[in-house]
Amino acid sequence: METINIGILGFGVVGTGVAKLLLDKKTVLESRTGAVLNLKTIADIDTTTDRGIDLGQTRLIDDAGGVIADPDIDIIVETIGGETVAKACIEKAMANGKHVVTANKALLAGHGNGLVKLARKNSVDLAFEASCGGCMPIIKTLRESLVANHIRSMSGILNGTCNYILTKISQDGSEFEAALKNAQDLGFAEAEPSLDIDGHDTAHKLAILNSLAHGMEINLKDIHVEGIRNITPADIKFAREFGYTIKLLAIGKIHDDHVEARVHPTMIPDTNPLSHVDQSMNAIAVDADATGQTMLYGKGAGMMPTASAVLSDIADIARNMIAGTRRRMPILGFLEDHIKEIPILPMEELSTRYYLRFEAQDHPGVLSTISGILGEHHISIKSVHQKGRKNNGRVPVVMITHMANEASVQTALTRIVKTDSVVGNPMVIRIEETA
Amino acid sequence: METINIGILGFGVVGTGVAKLLLDKKTVLESRTGAVLNLKTIADIDTTTDRGIDLGQTRLIDDAGGVIADPDIDIIVETIGGETVAKACIEKAMANGKHVVTANKALLAGHGNGLVKLARKNSVDLAFEASCGGCMPIIKTLRESLVANHIRSMSGILNGTCNYILTKISQDGSEFEAALKNAQDLGFAEAEPSLDIDGHDTAHKLAILNSLAHGMEINLKDIHVEGIRNITPADIKFAREFGYTIKLLAIGKIHDDHVEARVHPTMIPDTNPLSHVDQSMNAIAVDADATGQTMLYGKGAGMMPTASAVLSDIADIARNMIAGTRRRMPILGFLEDHIKEIPILPMEELSTRYYLRFEAQDHPGVLSTISGILGEHHISIKSVHQKGRKNNGRVPVVMITHMANEASVQTALTRIVKTDSVVGNPMVIRIEETA
Repeated sequence: METINIGILGFGVVGTGVAKLLLDKKTVLESRTGAVLNLKTIADIDTTTDRGIDLGQTRLIDDAGGVIADPDIDIIVETIGGETVAKACIEKAMANGKHVVTANKALLAGHGNGLVKLARKNSVDLAFEASCGGCMPIIKTLRESLVANHIRSMSGILNGTCNYILTKISQDGSEFEAALKNAQDLGFAEAEPSLDIDGHDTAHKLAILNSLAHGMEINLKDIHVEGIRNITPADIKFAREFGYTIKLLAIGKIHDDHVEARVHPTMIPDTNPLSHVDQSMNAIAVDADATGQTMLYGKGAGMMPTASAVLSDIADIARNMIAGTRRRMPILGFLEDHIKEIPILPMEELSTRYYLRFEAQDHPGVLSTISGILGEHHISIKSVHQKGRKNNGRVPVVMITHMANEASVQTALTRIVKTDSVVGNPMVIRIEETA
Repeated sequence: METINIGILGFGVVGTGVAKLLLDKKTVLESRTGAVLNLKTIADIDTTTDRGIDLGQTRLIDDAGGVIADPDIDIIVETIGGETVAKACIEKAMANGKHVVTANKALLAGHGNGLVKLARKNSVDLAFEASCGGCMPIIKTLRESLVANHIRSMSGILNGTCNYILTKISQDGSEFEAALKNAQDLGFAEAEPSLDIDGHDTAHKLAILNSLAHGMEINLKDIHVEGIRNITPADIKFAREFGYTIKLLAIGKIHDDHVEARVHPTMIPDTNPLSHVDQSMNAIAVDADATGQTMLYGKGAGMMPTASAVLSDIADIARNMIAGTRRRMPILGFLEDHIKEIPILPMEELSTRYYLRFEAQDHPGVLSTISGILGEHHISIKSVHQKGRKNNGRVPVVMITHMANEASVQTALTRIVKTDSVVGNPMVIRIEETA
């Protein structure tokens, strides 16, 4: 049986998971791939902490360069994270003719196009199943299973931290800060949580998935991103009364000459299977012309789910090597010369439905003022609910609009805020009727 | 760009879908695979019916042999169905050195081991993503994405006809016969529906999936199969009151030296994501050691979803051909010499929980008789509900048991039926607490 030598850069959570699987699953991996997947070397600046693994013959060194330069090593697994050292290591590894497997979504979202070109130049593979959706095989599904489909749209719950927090607020009425604290206590959120809760991690994944789905260059900078900091228990309660659930969604849709790509809290109907995806679970719904609606569901993060996805990439490359081939699959799902630059729709041109919540003064004419301004901007209201009465004499007024233009909504809201009818900024949550 | 010639045997629903995709998606398939996928010939005894496709350069002939013998054709797509002609055609195609793609689950479940050996002998590929779960990429997921996982269990809703009927009974209280009639009227059930509603179609799929998940030979004959004919609105209503939904599940679990493989109506808790899979949709939940719980969801049948899966197989083979390789992936997910014969647990040795519904005579001592006999067989009762009162003086008695042995339950029920406490046969539905 052919031996394939693997080096891991970064012996943190994901690196440890990958090492565990390579060592613990040696026999089954041989039976499934026909190759001996030999974990030759791991590099990490910390060579002393006990990770709870018996490394056996595997060397642990403190110098990534020693792994990258090792002529015996065929596949480099980058689990360093970040965009500086990781990028340099990957570039060097490719230059040395090594295939690269990474879970680094920030790096791919920011520098993926360049890395794809570099992989081509060096005739190596670059694989990243673990970068989007943890153990859900969304990369493989888009690139291989849906090969004959026109992928019309994707909606994903791609960040377990946000989904945990929204579930918590929904289930026990916690305020955001308390739910975040709870998530941190349980290890579902980082001490510095902004990458997750402000939506950036989700946007990184959407940038990658849009590229694979639509045959376009990776484009992070034009994705509209909003996080979940402003979501209140009241909004979740109102949403439920209307038959909706609030999720942080990554939305990617293709139109004739542009794509929609946006990340924001979204109200989805209870008939949408994504509405049942709770706690820290992830899911992605894909609507394609031949398959119709499909969905993948699973853990989007964590040591072993992420490592499982890394191993699927390693096995793919190993199978290529045994077959005497490389670069069997186009990295972004389309031949590189066929990848287009498709513009992302500017957010102000978006057309969708809106949930609007105002803190309105409780005096006559308020509803008329608000609806009058909305009407002047061609925003028509599907339903209005005036709920309860606050101690301070203000009442929440909740509206659901018909399809409306984003710029018009924003302009109208700016005008409404300036009247004496409402207090503070209104809450705006976009609605997706279909997944 | 290299041209790969494809022949389709059978121009029925699936064959037509495959032809549509090959012809309509020619450009995108070239961009995604780097090959020209040329549909050279279709064979069907009916060469005159208009299938609504402009075949262009593709020939439609009435002789499958003409396709199988054509030295230009690289890949044969078998969409004839059945186990006689289809089998002979596939065997001949393999003998002629052609790769074979099929959606024929009955054939694979019954004769798959032999076909796998024949593919090996002739050094060709045999691909069947469309055989299980329609457009859900469950074959690829088990074989590739979960490569480093020990797959502990699978539970699948794999038959859209049954799921539609159960949903219908659940939503409007229809009796089974009426729900079946409705499904037939809408095209969700065949005129002769027994293959679907008696669970055999689901068992075919489970036989294939068990093999891929557990590295075992395909074994259909030892799978316990029950269909949904006996499910009543009352059972679905009682289930709901206990927090359960009734689904026809394919269940495959591995234990130390055997697997469980069974198809029957199953009560699952509302917290199980499968419980939200309604209408004719399919889903399969997989519990594996690295990933934890994952689920795929999508259309399990229909022209285009099935054709989409066939196309993913064609693309895989095409990519191998361009890469100058073949048989890159072991057909059953494990090297053929590593595939084991793992016995399926005889049903009478199963241990699970049970829902039991008796039509009990409404006189004193009935409950004591029933529970006494159950107790003598070491079946302990978790809860009992005596619901309503029928006109004829009988009352339904519903029980949920703790874990119990199947043989003991059946023996106890045989004894209970012989008493004068109950009328007719009790309803038995097995419960799965986890997916």
